[in-house]
Amino acid sequence: MVIRGSTPMGMPSGVPEVVIMRLPQYIRILSEMLAGGVEMVSSQQLGEMLQVTPAQIRKDLSYFGRFGKQGRGYNVKGLLAELKEIMGLDRSWNVGLVGVGRLGRAILSYPGFAPEGFHIIAAFDADPNLVGRVIGNLNVQSMNELDTVVKELDISIGIVAVPSRHAQGVIDRLMDCGIKAILSYAPIAPQGQAGVKIRNIDPVLSLQTMTFYLSSGSAED
Amino acid sequence: MVIRGSTPMGMPSGVPEVVIMRLPQYIRILSEMLAGGVEMVSSQQLGEMLQVTPAQIRKDLSYFGRFGKQGRGYNVKGLLAELKEIMGLDRSWNVGLVGVGRLGRAILSYPGFAPEGFHIIAAFDADPNLVGRVIGNLNVQSMNELDTVVKELDISIGIVAVPSRHAQGVIDRLMDCGIKAILSYAPIAPQGQAGVKIRNIDPVLSLQTMTFYLSSGSAED
Repeated sequence: MVIRGSTPMGMPSGVPEVVIMRLPQYIRILSEMLAGGVEMVSSQQLGEMLQVTPAQIRKDLSYFGRFGKQGRGYNVKGLLAELKEIMGLDRSWNVGLVGVGRLGRAILSYPGFAPEGFHIIAAFDADPNLVGRVIGNLNVQSMNELDTVVKELDISIGIVAVPSRHAQGVIDRLMDCGIKAILSYAPIAPQGQAGVKIRNIDPVLSLQTMTFYLSSGSAED
Repeated sequence: MVIRGSTPMGMPSGVPEVVIMRLPQYIRILSEMLAGGVEMVSSQQLGEMLQVTPAQIRKDLSYFGRFGKQGRGYNVKGLLAELKEIMGLDRSWNVGLVGVGRLGRAILSYPGFAPEGFHIIAAFDADPNLVGRVIGNLNVQSMNELDTVVKELDISIGIVAVPSRHAQGVIDRLMDCGIKAILSYAPIAPQGQAGVKIRNIDPVLSLQTMTFYLSSGSAED
């Protein structure tokens, strides 16, 4: 709790990370329900969609206050708005990308970030041949400018798309600039600092969760 | 259980998906331990590293037989070998990629797949201007050839890297060719068929699990 800092906005501290990991999925499901005209939802229904027990749903939400009414369930619109605010998803975030090679360019052209409030507004690369070039509407900047630009543009999230051998160094640089949330595409287990969250996009791990079914289902085909 | 087919190799059926999702992480942790010279590990230690209870570790592993010895823990090397075999990770898999735009090219040049046994051996695109070009050592093939090539090359996993609006169509085509495991980079919730596993790589969901900490920790900085 000390690591995460105080709770100046009255935010609950000490919420288990596994609960935080689930909340974006609550938000997605509630958004779809709202779009579909659903007004009320029970913890039973939410549980079925999230593959957890209704008791777990009630416990998850209890960290953030009293939402549902006994026997009536949750108001979809109200719960969605509250969860978005709690998660910081009712606002937009400035994001900086490090690495504009093939992967970095794919990330810059990915259309899914902006509609969800994540705006990549700066791009950096260590390669002098790339610095100064315009890629995806952004002027690629030198890593020497990282600290200044992060502060000037109020960047709070970093995306790392550099080769594995450079990833930890780049993550260290981002943390030194005060970045507290990092999304890394490098297949390494990065070392963090206190108070910094790092998530890995790991396609290999995803593949590895499917081979069980291939092995057991089609072994004698 | 019917959907997943019979268990011709004596594989356990009816293992909860959440357990299967965790097993690749067990394998990673055990691999690191083995590389570090660790011989035995307790369910307590495994639990701490995987952020689940020791009881959960014992329950997870109990689906696959009796591994540990009361009071002595698990033999790292033995458990690792067994889990790899169970998960189908002691062999290699042929993978086909659909979509060789920016993202597809980044995937082809990603160095993390092959060392883990995932070999992208064919690439397809619907764009006639790309068909016939050599990208990442692969000759890009037409979507018309998908069915033939999947069968000839014994491809069992598909990776989808096409624009969102085409993703479901491509996933349908792959399933029609008998592909049972699909990794999709498109930010859509795809419709599967019985017996097919689909995983999404979703960078937005990852970002959304971090903003809670940014909101609560730095609101008054």
